[in-house]
Amino acid sequence: MIKSISFDDFNGVRMKKINYRLDKTDKTPLYLQLYQQIRLAIHQQQLHFGDKLPSKRHLSEFLQISQNTVENAYEQLLAEGYINAKARSGFFVSFQAELDFPCDLPRQKQTAYFQSRKTYYDLNPNLIDSKNFPIRQWQKAGKQSLKFWQNEMIALGDKQGDRNLRNEIAHYLYASRGVNCEPEQIVIGTGLENCVLQLILLFNQISEKPIQYAMESYGYITIEKMLTAYGKKVLHLPLTTDGQLDLATLAESQIDVAYLTPSNLYPFSQVLSIGQRQQLLEWANQQPQRYIIEDDYDSEYRYKGKPIPALQSLDVNEKVIYLGSFSKLLMPSLRVGFMVLPKSLLSLYQEYCGFFNCGVSRFEQQRLATFIQQGEFEKHIQRMRKIYRKKMEMLCRLLQSHSDKIRYYGEHSGAYLLIELLKSPHTSTELVERCLQKNIKIYPLNYPNRQLFSIGFADIDEQEFNDVFEKLISILVLK
Amino acid sequence: MIKSISFDDFNGVRMKKINYRLDKTDKTPLYLQLYQQIRLAIHQQQLHFGDKLPSKRHLSEFLQISQNTVENAYEQLLAEGYINAKARSGFFVSFQAELDFPCDLPRQKQTAYFQSRKTYYDLNPNLIDSKNFPIRQWQKAGKQSLKFWQNEMIALGDKQGDRNLRNEIAHYLYASRGVNCEPEQIVIGTGLENCVLQLILLFNQISEKPIQYAMESYGYITIEKMLTAYGKKVLHLPLTTDGQLDLATLAESQIDVAYLTPSNLYPFSQVLSIGQRQQLLEWANQQPQRYIIEDDYDSEYRYKGKPIPALQSLDVNEKVIYLGSFSKLLMPSLRVGFMVLPKSLLSLYQEYCGFFNCGVSRFEQQRLATFIQQGEFEKHIQRMRKIYRKKMEMLCRLLQSHSDKIRYYGEHSGAYLLIELLKSPHTSTELVERCLQKNIKIYPLNYPNRQLFSIGFADIDEQEFNDVFEKLISILVLK
Repeated sequence: MIKSISFDDFNGVRMKKINYRLDKTDKTPLYLQLYQQIRLAIHQQQLHFGDKLPSKRHLSEFLQISQNTVENAYEQLLAEGYINAKARSGFFVSFQAELDFPCDLPRQKQTAYFQSRKTYYDLNPNLIDSKNFPIRQWQKAGKQSLKFWQNEMIALGDKQGDRNLRNEIAHYLYASRGVNCEPEQIVIGTGLENCVLQLILLFNQISEKPIQYAMESYGYITIEKMLTAYGKKVLHLPLTTDGQLDLATLAESQIDVAYLTPSNLYPFSQVLSIGQRQQLLEWANQQPQRYIIEDDYDSEYRYKGKPIPALQSLDVNEKVIYLGSFSKLLMPSLRVGFMVLPKSLLSLYQEYCGFFNCGVSRFEQQRLATFIQQGEFEKHIQRMRKIYRKKMEMLCRLLQSHSDKIRYYGEHSGAYLLIELLKSPHTSTELVERCLQKNIKIYPLNYPNRQLFSIGFADIDEQEFNDVFEKLISILVLK
Repeated sequence: MIKSISFDDFNGVRMKKINYRLDKTDKTPLYLQLYQQIRLAIHQQQLHFGDKLPSKRHLSEFLQISQNTVENAYEQLLAEGYINAKARSGFFVSFQAELDFPCDLPRQKQTAYFQSRKTYYDLNPNLIDSKNFPIRQWQKAGKQSLKFWQNEMIALGDKQGDRNLRNEIAHYLYASRGVNCEPEQIVIGTGLENCVLQLILLFNQISEKPIQYAMESYGYITIEKMLTAYGKKVLHLPLTTDGQLDLATLAESQIDVAYLTPSNLYPFSQVLSIGQRQQLLEWANQQPQRYIIEDDYDSEYRYKGKPIPALQSLDVNEKVIYLGSFSKLLMPSLRVGFMVLPKSLLSLYQEYCGFFNCGVSRFEQQRLATFIQQGEFEKHIQRMRKIYRKKMEMLCRLLQSHSDKIRYYGEHSGAYLLIELLKSPHTSTELVERCLQKNIKIYPLNYPNRQLFSIGFADIDEQEFNDVFEKLISILVLK
């Protein structure tokens, strides 16, 4: 049975002719045949992004197959992100094909070749602005690195990461964060978590007694999970009433290593004051096994006053391990982070963690080094600072007219805002549910006696920005 | 002082004009100025790969600077791999520049931009044949992936690795190694070690008592170091007289997890017999917490008989965790390995190791998936099998005429050979030293009462092959 169907026979949207060849004698189920042929049409650009598909009823009548068969094919396409369902208006192609990509995917196992696309506004504070990513420049650095790639880059590189990338990072850190280090002190890992994992192992081995850790309350949850998985006790440092750290707790405790974000304290994005920084360094100096891990998260995106130098830049006694990541500065899927070890820890690291090979492919190291060296990274950060600042101002403006019901924190840095609902009659779970019904995903904070949400706005388009957040606010302030 | 020197003024090799501008009033030392200018000339292709440099004496006379200054500049260029020294013939450019690569490296910190090149024949058994790497096809897959790269790939992908790559790996494993698995069971990590690290953590958490590990004697040393660093006891399984594993030791011990290479037992590259495979699986079945980690190292390069199916393919009780890596199959610097978890461990993995993000960049995952999907990976393996087999035969032929002094093992697989010296009057350390003097680096095995060396031949060119190994053998059999 071969039937040609023009998609606007039923919908009148655009003229799209697809030839279906459904063979009931084939051992491949009909729904799979239909699914494969629509997918192929999308890959071959017979169907384009945004095209409307015929309704299930119409297509089943036309092809003389059951509506169930069409439904199964559509379900598969939905699951794989080829199409979107919009309530009360039907199914639409949501995949942007490129003609030169291998479009004939013959093997059964390749059904889920493409990740499904998100169909809601995700206010996850860890997202970045994907539309403003400098894709052209990043591709250019990629092409140059492909061209430069030589056979000697087949071999494993330096265990701590390629020297050229470490040079670039050292230079960048000094210029932007006041971090003073030699490239020798840098260890490149696949993300910040990978660096922490190595540190846990390092501290395990250089200390005779079990190491105890401290973190901010509501700090980076992944790190806390990791520490717990390794059997470490984690003390939460309480906050003072003005959102600073309660360092007295630290002084009284048996803590050895404090994992902190001094330039952006969780959850209220307070900056650790200079007095507290000094206190913290003094605490570390009192015992040889005490260290501070400085997670310098979001420090590049600061909108008020001078950028705050890293804690590491104040450290004269080699007590601070500096952690950075390209996940938010460039993109999460690159998987590159790094740590700067004090010189006194370096030989211990090389002795006890010498079996770790740098997990980043040398191609990606080369590409990133090129991107930084050509000045594109700095340009990108400066451009994103402006964009995020603008979005931050837009969000604050919207919230200001509801100051009786919503308070906010952390408006001077980053691409997310902590908001607090005052006297909302609804639980956070109810509000999350209501937002989801309007295609907005929000993330509540489990904070005692206060109703807090971490609102990430990085990946919301400027054009849609006011619409999305007006909708969000209207749900949050609803009686 | 500006002087123009034509490099063949002294050497008569080729006509290469370089303008030197050495400024004694500049705070940059003269040797650094000279170094920078020669480096620039190499990057700008005024000097090409293979060009001979003037001798130190000639250059110092011509530029009217001390010979020390020239020596320091040359040393720096040597250290960074721009030039090579050949005994009794001088210095030669050893860096292949590409004009469109950023060649002006102004910052002080970038002096070591390029890794130094090896100047000796390295018989490390972990190397691969870098000259026969299918660079064109790999670049092509890279270009396609750059082109296909979409903004949605900015976001973190699946924690276990992108679905399309896992599909390709599942398909490949089934076809080549008889490994039966769903893509859901695959976890992609940055190399095999990264997978083991996750397994250590998983076993830590699902077991109430401390887990004990066993490995082959002389097994993969990095894994043993890693286990030890995590505080694990590692039992070495002794070998029987015919080089098989002594499984009685395993049965009598308190071991929970055995890390083994059943298709290529260390160090004699024996294949674990089918009887022993059954015994091993039965051992694991006796206790719920017992598992076998199968490191399927070098199984693709087998030259005699049928390829041996993986132990995993015999496992019906979900006791085998299969480990694979692209380090030797493709290249070490890609940093991609994977594990196949039994279905019964999968939800435990997701529960206890859920904070691990896949460490491989999504670009590299995409590129590798494309390379496999286009059939290039299979082609590469088949081609390399022929090349390595030929090299293996060449090496064995050379050794056969010395069978009174050298015995060898493991000639049926891999790209290295274990050799044993019979009645050599010299210690292994002496022999390593003598080889180094002839620019050959060999790796002895610390085996009681026997003098063993692991001889990797992957990266020795066919043209040089007989020369290098004849030289090696002549040193080893020297009275």
